[in-house]
Amino acid sequence: MRGNGSVSIAEQVLAGNRYALSRVLTLIENDAQEGREALKVLFPHTGRSHLIGVTGAPGTGKSSLVNRMAYYYRHPPEGEPKRVAIVAVDPSSPFTGGAILGDRIRMRDLSGDRGVFIRSMASRGALGGLARTTAGVVQALDAAGFDVIFIETVGAGQAEVDIARLAHTTLVVEAPGLGDDVQAIKAGILEIADVLVVNKADRPGATATVRALTEMLKLAHPSQETIMHHGRRMTLSTGVAKKGDGPLWVPPVVQTVAIDNQGIDELAAAIARHRAFLEETGEWQVRDRVRLQSELENMLREALMQRWRDGMADETYRRVLEDVFARRLAPADAVGVLLNGA
Amino acid sequence: MRGNGSVSIAEQVLAGNRYALSRVLTLIENDAQEGREALKVLFPHTGRSHLIGVTGAPGTGKSSLVNRMAYYYRHPPEGEPKRVAIVAVDPSSPFTGGAILGDRIRMRDLSGDRGVFIRSMASRGALGGLARTTAGVVQALDAAGFDVIFIETVGAGQAEVDIARLAHTTLVVEAPGLGDDVQAIKAGILEIADVLVVNKADRPGATATVRALTEMLKLAHPSQETIMHHGRRMTLSTGVAKKGDGPLWVPPVVQTVAIDNQGIDELAAAIARHRAFLEETGEWQVRDRVRLQSELENMLREALMQRWRDGMADETYRRVLEDVFARRLAPADAVGVLLNGA
Repeated sequence: MRGNGSVSIAEQVLAGNRYALSRVLTLIENDAQEGREALKVLFPHTGRSHLIGVTGAPGTGKSSLVNRMAYYYRHPPEGEPKRVAIVAVDPSSPFTGGAILGDRIRMRDLSGDRGVFIRSMASRGALGGLARTTAGVVQALDAAGFDVIFIETVGAGQAEVDIARLAHTTLVVEAPGLGDDVQAIKAGILEIADVLVVNKADRPGATATVRALTEMLKLAHPSQETIMHHGRRMTLSTGVAKKGDGPLWVPPVVQTVAIDNQGIDELAAAIARHRAFLEETGEWQVRDRVRLQSELENMLREALMQRWRDGMADETYRRVLEDVFARRLAPADAVGVLLNGA
Repeated sequence: MRGNGSVSIAEQVLAGNRYALSRVLTLIENDAQEGREALKVLFPHTGRSHLIGVTGAPGTGKSSLVNRMAYYYRHPPEGEPKRVAIVAVDPSSPFTGGAILGDRIRMRDLSGDRGVFIRSMASRGALGGLARTTAGVVQALDAAGFDVIFIETVGAGQAEVDIARLAHTTLVVEAPGLGDDVQAIKAGILEIADVLVVNKADRPGATATVRALTEMLKLAHPSQETIMHHGRRMTLSTGVAKKGDGPLWVPPVVQTVAIDNQGIDELAAAIARHRAFLEETGEWQVRDRVRLQSELENMLREALMQRWRDGMADETYRRVLEDVFARRLAPADAVGVLLNGA
């Protein structure tokens, strides 16, 4: 059963009403029943946006970069302008302060442009909750007809990586001279990078950063080495290489200076090549399915836990917890007691 | 039912056998049945270690700091040396490279000291998996009799914050001049800081960083303001202030230069004051219970999902997934179908 109000608000979103969209996103963020109902109506209209995840350590200038990219898509050198949404996710913050600051900086270039929609999200509860509400927010923006949706995360931890993974194309942003143990983090997030961006490339050390990333790419993508051995290696800036029977994506390293608007066109070109690669290889559909399955399983996990909680007597649960607190019952045994009554 | 082998290995751990401990930690990391059985035997012997979480952005020198702290506890200016374990967790990396590098640096000062045990953990699977195995590893080290267990994370994202929260005392490490959007991250992790450390305090900008943190602390702990109004505010370095009927902890800001061994004694003193605060107020027990309940609920969530998967026909699940992929069925409706057969 659907409430009339939510059908109506979802229909307003589909008709292009920005206020209705804002309101739906808030309902989704608050995990309100009305938001869940609206998502059911919006869902059949999803699947058309190009989702671009943007992740990387603090200090790399991700927000400025996304800002410039959005402006570029709104004022392309050729072709039609794209409608752009930006979802800025800060899983490490219960506040929206940082994200609000980012919005304010963005306003200078993008304010008043109705083809741009910016939404900041902070963590309001459990980690799984943020991943779920981000997925819902992206679905609503997709249904609302945005051609490109940037999903930008503040940090570079596992939660941020998981959120960036929601995307078709993941940009990993680095900057020169961010400290000595940045290397350790890079190894992990290189794995998920479709395009590597060295922002602030006018800073000292940019060449060394590009070289280090290129070296690490060889470790993370050993097939690249194979290609070199066969004398068919494409330049890194080309992005697509052939290997075996299908094309293989080698993440290009793109240098930008976002605040000076440098390298933005090259980055847009790399993103366009990656999109073409996804479509040609069927990988677009694969990523779509992986994302939807992961969303579904997160919702299942929460629903199962909720159902179990509803069926468990508070008194029984409290007694088992007391036994655990007193170290009389190991957590693994407690799970057995709670699930099997054994 | 317990396998004889695992009882035996758990007993060897309790008897102080380091090789058995290493082996048990590997079994726990691999989520092996033998590891789970060993944990059941070890669990009644836990609850005595002081768990110290260490988190902060890359480049702040967390590893060096933990290294120095471990050395300090092994060679205290007065009193008995403490047995120290270090668990270095890198949730953003599927590799152990960074952590291994960290270990090698540590070896110079700590190698050959049997009162120190260092374990690196990288993400091997799901996020929830790492939190669960970290909890298990910490329990095994606790049972093995380490007085202090450092739980150090590489990044500063939500996963890292969740892991640091496992601790009794959480250190948040900052360093001067790490970039312009570091501020945004700080707001979130300040919330969980029991002690703030400005490492690399010999760098330019250290005073500004300390001042910024002190200002942000006032926002994060508004009660501090109240105390000021009543003219009873303690200095930040004292760490404990009185408010209402009970003492209130105001996170001190401690400056260190880990590589030069500066400020390590002040940091140890701040940690000791926090421990005394936890014990006096009963907060030690509260944190212990919150941690155990959270561990138990993570295990429950996974067990419920596993049980559901075991009872679901692959064919049914595949059909529902296809409906979702084709946008015929919204994920929320799919959950209903899968759980209620509706």
